[in-house]
Amino acid sequence: MTNTLTGSHHSTPSMEEAELILERCNDLAAITSRPDTMERVHLSPEHAAANAQVAEWMREAGLSTWQDAAGNQCGRLEGSEPGLPALLLGSHIDTVPDAGRYDGMLGVLLAIQVADRIQRSGIPLPFALEVVAFSDEEGTRFGMALLGSRALSGTWKKEWWDLTDKDGITLAEAFTDFGLDPARLPGAFRRPENYVGYLEAHIEQGPYLEDAGRQLAVVTSIAGARRFNLTMTGHAGHAGGTPYDRRRDALVGASELVIEVERLSKEYGVIGTVGRLQAFPGGVNVIPGRVEFSLDLRAEFDADRDDCLRLLMNTANEIAARRNLVFAAKEIYRADATLCDPQLQLAITAGIQLTGDTEPMAFWSRAGHDGMAVADLTRIAMLFIRCRGGVSHHPDEHVKKKDVAAALDAFENAVLAVAVTSGTPVRLAP
Amino acid sequence: MTNTLTGSHHSTPSMEEAELILERCNDLAAITSRPDTMERVHLSPEHAAANAQVAEWMREAGLSTWQDAAGNQCGRLEGSEPGLPALLLGSHIDTVPDAGRYDGMLGVLLAIQVADRIQRSGIPLPFALEVVAFSDEEGTRFGMALLGSRALSGTWKKEWWDLTDKDGITLAEAFTDFGLDPARLPGAFRRPENYVGYLEAHIEQGPYLEDAGRQLAVVTSIAGARRFNLTMTGHAGHAGGTPYDRRRDALVGASELVIEVERLSKEYGVIGTVGRLQAFPGGVNVIPGRVEFSLDLRAEFDADRDDCLRLLMNTANEIAARRNLVFAAKEIYRADATLCDPQLQLAITAGIQLTGDTEPMAFWSRAGHDGMAVADLTRIAMLFIRCRGGVSHHPDEHVKKKDVAAALDAFENAVLAVAVTSGTPVRLAP
Repeated sequence: MTNTLTGSHHSTPSMEEAELILERCNDLAAITSRPDTMERVHLSPEHAAANAQVAEWMREAGLSTWQDAAGNQCGRLEGSEPGLPALLLGSHIDTVPDAGRYDGMLGVLLAIQVADRIQRSGIPLPFALEVVAFSDEEGTRFGMALLGSRALSGTWKKEWWDLTDKDGITLAEAFTDFGLDPARLPGAFRRPENYVGYLEAHIEQGPYLEDAGRQLAVVTSIAGARRFNLTMTGHAGHAGGTPYDRRRDALVGASELVIEVERLSKEYGVIGTVGRLQAFPGGVNVIPGRVEFSLDLRAEFDADRDDCLRLLMNTANEIAARRNLVFAAKEIYRADATLCDPQLQLAITAGIQLTGDTEPMAFWSRAGHDGMAVADLTRIAMLFIRCRGGVSHHPDEHVKKKDVAAALDAFENAVLAVAVTSGTPVRLAP
Repeated sequence: MTNTLTGSHHSTPSMEEAELILERCNDLAAITSRPDTMERVHLSPEHAAANAQVAEWMREAGLSTWQDAAGNQCGRLEGSEPGLPALLLGSHIDTVPDAGRYDGMLGVLLAIQVADRIQRSGIPLPFALEVVAFSDEEGTRFGMALLGSRALSGTWKKEWWDLTDKDGITLAEAFTDFGLDPARLPGAFRRPENYVGYLEAHIEQGPYLEDAGRQLAVVTSIAGARRFNLTMTGHAGHAGGTPYDRRRDALVGASELVIEVERLSKEYGVIGTVGRLQAFPGGVNVIPGRVEFSLDLRAEFDADRDDCLRLLMNTANEIAARRNLVFAAKEIYRADATLCDPQLQLAITAGIQLTGDTEPMAFWSRAGHDGMAVADLTRIAMLFIRCRGGVSHHPDEHVKKKDVAAALDAFENAVLAVAVTSGTPVRLAP
C-alpha cells in the first residue's frame, strides 16, 4: 500500500464508493415526512429513522455509535491508541422544506466513507475520528438554526427550550416526544481538549465552481447571517367596502419592504432574502390585516451586513408610518463571520491538490454551516463540492459522481494531511 | 292595529326584537371552526349546525322549513292563500376567515324577524314570504363565491364540482360529506314564475352612512367583481449560494405586482385587492420559487374594471419577463354590475322613510352580495345598515342596536310596500 499523501490509489474504487454514497443519499431522501417532496425536520419520526440508518452505516464502517443527548448521531473510530483527542468530521441530516438530497447528507456520508477507508487501511492515526450527523442545521422546524452543533459545542441557551414549531410544540416538548430528556442535554456538550479540529465536506450551493470548471474548493470563511421574523400589522377589512384612504393594508406595506430588501442588499454588496411571507387572514376579498415574513441577511463582512440592516429597519418603519401600519422585527438567529483555521485550510488544500487540481479555488461561503457553531469548540475547515447550476434547497440539487469520488479522495487526504502536520508521525500499516 | 305603512308602531318592541337579533348573531358566532376567531365555511360541520339553529328560529317564527339540495336553509310563510309566488328575503350564513358576526347573518335574522312580525300581525299578503340563509356567499372554502345563491337561481355550472378546497377535497365530495347528493342539485333550482322579487338587508361594509350620520340606505346597484388566482413561478434556491444575477425570486416579482395593483387601481377609480399571498417553499433561507396569490377587482362600471385588469395583466407579464419568472392568472369568479330593480328600490326607500329618515341615502355597493346571483332568477333590491367605522370582514365588525331596530322596521315596511304596490290590495287583519 502506498502512502495516500503521495497520490490517489483509489481511481477505480473511488468511483464505486461514490456510487455507494449517491445510493445512500437516495436512501436518506426516501425518509421524508411528505410523500411528494423531501422534508425531514429536527426531532421528527423521520429524524429518528435517518439516525438509525446512519448509525447502521457507521457500524458497517467499523465505528462505535451513539445518539447524543441532543439527537446528534455519532460514531467513533479510535486512533493509534484508545481515548485520543478526536478529529471531528461531519455535517447535518435535517432539511429545508422541498429540499434536495445532498445538502448536509453528502458531507455525513463522505465522512463515514473516509472513516471506512482509514479503518480498512489500518493506518494508525495520532487522533481518533469522530463522525457526527447533526440533528439540526437548517432551523426549519423551530426557526433557530444550528441546534445540533450548538449543543455539541456547549453553546446552548436555556431560552431555546421555549421555541415553538408551527403547531405550537415547544423545543422541550419535542425533545421529550423524541425520547430525549432536556435535563440531560449537558451530556451532549463536548470539551475542547478532546478535539483537534473539525472538517466538513459540503456542496457549494453556489455557481462559482461550475462557472470555473472546477470540482472542489477550500473554504476561507463562512459568512455571518442574521435572521428575523418580521410582522407588518394593519387592519383587515372588506375589500369592497373600505376606501383607499382608510385602508391599512399590511400586504402592500410588506411588499414595499420586500423590494427594498433586494434593492438595498444589492447596493451594500449584501445578500438579503425574504424566504417566508404569508398574508392573514387570507380571504380573497379581505384586505390583509397582518403579514408575517422573514428576513435573512448575510455578507462576507459583518459591518456591511449590519449597515444594510440598519437602513432596512429605518425603511420598514418609514413604510409603516406612511401607511398607518405597525412594523416589528424579532431577531431569531445571529452568527458573525467564522474564519476557517489556516492550518486546516492547508490540509484541505493539500487534499484537493492530490486529486490533480494543483491550484485549488478558495472562497468564502455565502451559506451558513455547522462549522459556525463548532468553531466555538475547536478549529474548523471546509471542503466545497461543485453542484449543478449552483442549485440547492431545491429538488433539482445535483452532484456528479466523479465529483463525489474526487471529494472522497480529497477529504481522506485532508485527514491524513492533518495527521502529518500534527507533529506525530503517521505510521503506515504494513 | 294600524297599517304599518302609515308609521312605525314598533318603537319599544323594535328595540326588544333588535336585542333578540343581536343575541342570535352572538349565538351564530359561537358556531365556529376555530376557537379564537370566527370562521364558518361552506359544507362544514359548523355550516350544518348553523342551518339547524336557523331552522329552529324559522319554525319559532311560524315558517315551514327545509334544507334545499344545495345546503341553503329555507323557510316559508304562506300568503293570503297557499301556493302564491313568494317574495324572497335573505342573506348568507357563511363567513370569511377571522370574520365579524353581522356580515350576512344580520340579514338572515332580520328576514326571520320580519316574517315573524307578518305572521303575528296576521296581515294576509298577496304573496308568500320565503326566507333563505344562503350556504355560501363568501367563497372562502372553494374560492368561488355565491355557490348557494347560484344554485337557488339555477345558474350552476358543472365544472364547479371539481373545485377543491385547501385540503384537496372537491366540491362534489364536500356535498356528499355534508349528506347532500350532487345528482339531486337541480332540485334546488327555483323557477322565476314562483317569485315576485328578492329583498336583502346587509351591513354597509363601508363608511359612507357613518360619515353622513345616517342609519340606513337604499342600494342602487352592486359592483361587478372579478377574481383571480395568480401564480408567479421562479426557482427556489439557497438564499446564500445564489448570486443576484442568477436569482429567479418569485416573491420579489409578486411584490412588485401587489404594489402595481394598488397604484393602477387608484388611477382607474377601481378597487383592487390582493387578499391572499403565500411564498413557497417558505424556508427562511430559501429563495421563494413560487408565490400563490389572489386578485379581486371591482368598480361601479365594468368597463373601468376591465381596462384596469388588462393593464395589470400586461404589467404582470412585464415583471415576469424582466425577472425570468412565469406569471399565470386563472379567473375564478366574474360578476358584472347588477342593477337593483327601480320599483323594489322605491319599496326600500318607503320603508326607510317610515322610520323618520325622509330623504334616504342611495348609493352603489362596493361589496358583492347574494343578490348578484338571485338577479338571474328575479328582480332584487337591498337595504344597507350602518356599521361602525365601515369595518367588515374583521372581528371588530359592529352595529348599533338602534340601527338594527330601525332596519327591522324599514325592512318590514318595505315588504308591506311591495305588497301595496303589487296591485293586490293588502287586507288588514281584523
